[in-house]
Amino acid sequence: MADDREYRKHYEFLKGEVEKRLAQVVAERKPHTVYDPIRYILKSGGKRVRPVLLLLSCEVVGSNIREALDAAAAIEVLHTFTLVHDDIMDEAETRRGRPTIHTTWDSNVAILSGDQMVALAFRSLLRTKSVPVKHIAQELTRAFIEVCEGQGYDKEFEERTDVSVEEYLRMVEKKTAVMISTATAIGAMVGRGARREVIALRRFGRFLGIAFQIQDDMLDIVGDESEFGKKIGGDLKQGKKTYPILRALESVRGRDRELIRRVMQRKVRTKRQIRDVRRMMESHGAIDDTRELVRLNTRRAQAALGPLRACRAKEMLHWLADELLVRSH
Amino acid sequence: MADDREYRKHYEFLKGEVEKRLAQVVAERKPHTVYDPIRYILKSGGKRVRPVLLLLSCEVVGSNIREALDAAAAIEVLHTFTLVHDDIMDEAETRRGRPTIHTTWDSNVAILSGDQMVALAFRSLLRTKSVPVKHIAQELTRAFIEVCEGQGYDKEFEERTDVSVEEYLRMVEKKTAVMISTATAIGAMVGRGARREVIALRRFGRFLGIAFQIQDDMLDIVGDESEFGKKIGGDLKQGKKTYPILRALESVRGRDRELIRRVMQRKVRTKRQIRDVRRMMESHGAIDDTRELVRLNTRRAQAALGPLRACRAKEMLHWLADELLVRSH
Repeated sequence: MADDREYRKHYEFLKGEVEKRLAQVVAERKPHTVYDPIRYILKSGGKRVRPVLLLLSCEVVGSNIREALDAAAAIEVLHTFTLVHDDIMDEAETRRGRPTIHTTWDSNVAILSGDQMVALAFRSLLRTKSVPVKHIAQELTRAFIEVCEGQGYDKEFEERTDVSVEEYLRMVEKKTAVMISTATAIGAMVGRGARREVIALRRFGRFLGIAFQIQDDMLDIVGDESEFGKKIGGDLKQGKKTYPILRALESVRGRDRELIRRVMQRKVRTKRQIRDVRRMMESHGAIDDTRELVRLNTRRAQAALGPLRACRAKEMLHWLADELLVRSH
Repeated sequence: MADDREYRKHYEFLKGEVEKRLAQVVAERKPHTVYDPIRYILKSGGKRVRPVLLLLSCEVVGSNIREALDAAAAIEVLHTFTLVHDDIMDEAETRRGRPTIHTTWDSNVAILSGDQMVALAFRSLLRTKSVPVKHIAQELTRAFIEVCEGQGYDKEFEERTDVSVEEYLRMVEKKTAVMISTATAIGAMVGRGARREVIALRRFGRFLGIAFQIQDDMLDIVGDESEFGKKIGGDLKQGKKTYPILRALESVRGRDRELIRRVMQRKVRTKRQIRDVRRMMESHGAIDDTRELVRLNTRRAQAALGPLRACRAKEMLHWLADELLVRSH
């Protein structure tokens, strides 16, 4: 697949540009309490999916990615901030394969350096020159508001045992999809795309984001720890209401249903119990159903690209959706 | 004092306008985990000094305060966010005379609702119509960056016993003064003030902010709990390096110096010990010196108003500096 190699190469190029701009976002050194953890987490790797999508969205509307690098760095820094604060709330020990900030330092350091990342994200975005910043700043702010609301629902759902699939999907929309659709929309805006291009790219990002979160939920049960970068079964232990769980709850009866109930009540803690949940879910088709929903949303995302002009960036967005979602499991 | 009554009345009018706009900033209700604590803290009262200063700065350059209300609400919400997160880090139990958010709910709720307040502050600021938002958004972002740095230094100083008065003053500049000078500068900018007016008002806010923080440090030792709205001696217990402490450390010898050392090492915990510290500081003139520094910075702030045209708003800024600082103790 010659195309595949070319796409991968271009992805790495865009990712490299993002890395360079990220290094510039944190020029400050002191106070160490604030900037050391920020550098630590920003250097923890990660696929940089959101900023690369932002750059591709700028390319697909016919503009140079140089104009969008500040915005791309902004979206990655804002996204990383959400991980830092969520990890405190979720008591997560690892992230991107390394100890979390609140584990390496402490919660106070993680709160404060997270706050600073929000400020740095806005500073970077406001450096954008190609368009007046008002609309893109409003976009970033709206994403920020919705991601907090999504996290609020996610935490509230932990305490509830009657969450519906619809409620779950609304939460995912806010918690994950909005940040990705904002990345693609801002990319198109910074590239001075037409209204219909902004709409198409926002739609693409939205479905991709939904697929992304559902896949993440699934990997918490069937994933490979070293690839996943965080511990398997973390969601289960916390009583997170994820799609595979809610899906299983709808159809499973008898003793297996009791097991699901135990998950909902946060009584599943050991590796063995997590393995039991996995086996049960596989046998009842809940995992296959989840995989199907990932596929469906990926296809919707790809279909949303329709109105865009044919070009390499468009092909790459299509390819990337498959790459991130369908082929990855 | 007829003027005094008139100023007070206008202050209350401006404060009332701020309250109304603040109520509009949080139109959302759900998720409750996010919005209930925000409403709780925003309704906890407070003098609304920063937004009122912002509105007066808009008036003093000759514009209508209506144009500045979104920015005024933004500065108050951003300031309140810093209190919410600082209170978690400082383990403070009360704020504005009521239990803090992390005490009423928990730390996670306080982290998340604090984050959301940042987003709401930016949303409000971006609604400003009188000027292109780029510069005022950059101002708010810079204040946000510096206040995080200030808090970082403040926390680092807790662990150190060799903090100098100079280091302390640099920290105060960031932690407190920048938010106030940003309020006055944004007020002038939104009111389309001339460059020299923006500079004068920024200077006014800066010195006022320094005076404000030093007074706050002093009230932690000699204040009245019911007026202060938070517990006396909180800074002492935490080993905060405040001006009166650093000042006393410079001059006090013998057994009293030992008492100061104990404060620095966070060994002063009981009410009786706090009383001892207060008595010792009073007898050595550290409190008088601190009061003098508050006065000095208040005068500097008032002198900075020089270049502004004579009008009621200018007189009020002058009066307000006395009111907040010199007459209040």
